[in-house]
Amino acid sequence: MRRFPEPIQNAVASFARLPGVGPKTALRFVYYLLKIPRHDLEVMARSIITLADRIRTCENCFTYCETPVCDICRDNRRDTSMVCVVEEPRDIATIESTGAYRGQYHVLGGVLNPIDGMTPDVLRVRELTERVRNDESMREVILALSPTMQGESTMMYLTKQLSSLGRRVTRLARGLPIGASLEYADEITLGDAMKGRRDA
Amino acid sequence: MRRFPEPIQNAVASFARLPGVGPKTALRFVYYLLKIPRHDLEVMARSIITLADRIRTCENCFTYCETPVCDICRDNRRDTSMVCVVEEPRDIATIESTGAYRGQYHVLGGVLNPIDGMTPDVLRVRELTERVRNDESMREVILALSPTMQGESTMMYLTKQLSSLGRRVTRLARGLPIGASLEYADEITLGDAMKGRRDA
Repeated sequence: MRRFPEPIQNAVASFARLPGVGPKTALRFVYYLLKIPRHDLEVMARSIITLADRIRTCENCFTYCETPVCDICRDNRRDTSMVCVVEEPRDIATIESTGAYRGQYHVLGGVLNPIDGMTPDVLRVRELTERVRNDESMREVILALSPTMQGESTMMYLTKQLSSLGRRVTRLARGLPIGASLEYADEITLGDAMKGRRDA
Repeated sequence: MRRFPEPIQNAVASFARLPGVGPKTALRFVYYLLKIPRHDLEVMARSIITLADRIRTCENCFTYCETPVCDICRDNRRDTSMVCVVEEPRDIATIESTGAYRGQYHVLGGVLNPIDGMTPDVLRVRELTERVRNDESMREVILALSPTMQGESTMMYLTKQLSSLGRRVTRLARGLPIGASLEYADEITLGDAMKGRRDA
């Protein structure tokens, strides 16, 4: 294939690093950028650098924020008796959008996956146990990891780690998602949905 | 939905402008960028600005290049008796990758679409007719636009514009693409494939 001018190739290489973006999509992005005003390119470039300059992780819950401690951790109207353990900062936004939770969060930074180097000391497991141990008001730890194989084994590991601290450790309910067809539900999900049935 | 820190929102807004990228994908990109080293963010930001600084359009064929005239136009081993009219610079790379063409190119800059403001004077139609008129060696103009409704009407328009110049005007063959199923071919394609049949 014919080579593109070097600046185009370099930009394609940068964009092709993004998750789910291959060389063809990256080239499509770059051709789009070649058509927009220089000022818009500067805005985009600056927004990328600003991520490195201004975003840090909350000292308390490890989500992304601009201040030493994030908005949720500083908000004294929130319930401090429960902490919800999530994999990544984006999961906080997802849970917040439900409006069903008003407690604290703790970003684990991933799930256990020793083959990829995700061991307990890479994740923020020690920070979680320390935080729960030191905070007397914290009565419940909610494990809100995705119910994948890695997520499940991480939740089992965390349950064990937290067991000696005498707090309630819970996990999200398993059941049929809205709009799901009973016909295609797997046995484990359906079995748990049956056990967890509630009054209609 | 809970608001993200401003730098994250700004970066999401920038990426969401890219073709085919919505807010969710943009957020995924930004979360990825938050995990890579600052140096890599600088490389990416610089590659975007460099597009504006170093990429220009060839004075002759209007493709993207770094010099006043592009590599293909300067290459004296290429056939100057034919010019292939394409919609965008990326189409040149696609045609070059076939190895089936060794002539010149002309980037039209789009196809006719008056509703979106793509009129003949926005496209490089005048530049094409001038170029063909002034270049005695040019014997054939190949219209290699996509056979969409807009592409077809643009090719009809160009054929008319070029008719008075006494050169051969051709277009790409229509037929069944490799791997296609006869069952699902439309009548026009199949009819043209029948008319254009060749010895096996």
